[in-house]
Amino acid sequence: MTDAVSARIAELGLTLPEPAAPVAAYVPTVEANGLLHVSGQVSFVDGKLLKGRLGEDVTLEQGVLAAQGCGLMILAQVKAALGGSFDRVERIVKLGAFVNSVPDFTDQPKVANGASELMVAVFGEAGRHARSAVGVPTLPLGVAVEIDAVVAVRPA
Amino acid sequence: MTDAVSARIAELGLTLPEPAAPVAAYVPTVEANGLLHVSGQVSFVDGKLLKGRLGEDVTLEQGVLAAQGCGLMILAQVKAALGGSFDRVERIVKLGAFVNSVPDFTDQPKVANGASELMVAVFGEAGRHARSAVGVPTLPLGVAVEIDAVVAVRPA
Amino acid sequence: MTDAVSARIAELGLTLPEPAAPVAAYVPTVEANGLLHVSGQVSFVDGKLLKGRLGEDVTLEQGVLAAQGCGLMILAQVKAALGGSFDRVERIVKLGAFVNSVPDFTDQPKVANGASELMVAVFGEAGRHARSAVGVPTLPLGVAVEIDAVVAVRPA
Repeated sequence: MTDAVSARIAELGLTLPEPAAPVAAYVPTVEANGLLHVSGQVSFVDGKLLKGRLGEDVTLEQGVLAAQGCGLMILAQVKAALGGSFDRVERIVKLGAFVNSVPDFTDQPKVANGASELMVAVFGEAGRHARSAVGVPTLPLGVAVEIDAVVAVRPA
Repeated sequence: MTDAVSARIAELGLTLPEPAAPVAAYVPTVEANGLLHVSGQVSFVDGKLLKGRLGEDVTLEQGVLAAQGCGLMILAQVKAALGGSFDRVERIVKLGAFVNSVPDFTDQPKVANGASELMVAVFGEAGRHARSAVGVPTLPLGVAVEIDAVVAVRPA
Repeated sequence: MTDAVSARIAELGLTLPEPAAPVAAYVPTVEANGLLHVSGQVSFVDGKLLKGRLGEDVTLEQGVLAAQGCGLMILAQVKAALGGSFDRVERIVKLGAFVNSVPDFTDQPKVANGASELMVAVFGEAGRHARSAVGVPTLPLGVAVEIDAVVAVRPA
């Protein structure tokens, strides 16, 4: 037995990672007033951290994969927070994307699309979200991308 | 026929831009649980992107104008999202300002005031918002400022 | 007479600072739809700004203290916003931590723990929050850390 969104993820040929434990003194998600806030997820790809900096040692293609990896981890955290099903997800509201960038790299939107397109592929209309995407000079553990999220959820 | 806030914008001698299409795979705004999340808006001034970096090739005055341009685009997106009127706006809740900065530029608050003062001029008390303002080394398309927003809205 | 959380802060040997006035055209907090958004608070420690950059002139220990200082100022702002008591606090929902960092400093999570551990020490389970932590090249006034927050509050 699986919910429709989990089935869709499998159809897309994607596999959710094990939800990563926070690297510090916080929790992966908090639900309050119908909104689930998801902690910044760092770029895991195929179970390993994708590290480095766009414009330096990470290509645009790798950056897109890194952002998709953040998106998959967001999905894994959301599913774990909602008792193993996406059925309560009403809308992906907002993604906040931080892209490890050299000062002359300005394609943060293309990188962040790795996560944005994932949300639309998985949730359809409910996956269309607001977003900010900015460059940063460094990220935790040296990862290439970090993305946090706000998700609207139906009452339990 | 126009709502009071649109009239006030005209009184201030300001013109809302055409709401810009997102530069990537997301949408300008999402409304959920009484909050409208507005995507990061980049600095358009007089219909053109204001590009560059504070402390390098963008002066403080230009930075303030860039932030005002982000604010006007936020207003344009909010108006479009709410069916062409500001009547449902209850409160500007939060602005998140990202200022393209060299490492020794520390006047991000003065830059972000270009948007903050706009909100108060336009909405009065309802325009008084919480804010964060930080420096970043680079932004999408090389713009000088990006600002996102959370707006409380009344039921439709 | 004092509320339980204020008593706990005193038990921990901590003192809340005077809530700082915003350095610009905005307000410290806005409450809307059950969420209190707290403006980015800069790192005051013992009444003085803790300035500098991690990996350059600020040690990890100092960074942790800077983040704790941001956290104490968030608490001071929340208490002031809620009429001098923490009784309406339901949950610390989200912290957004910006750490002034050189490009090869990647311990933003350890720095941000200065605020995160404070929230858990003060509020217990209700202090366990979602979080993002990123590096930035510069911050307002040259401070080492800036942190903003979302707090769920009970009806007044």
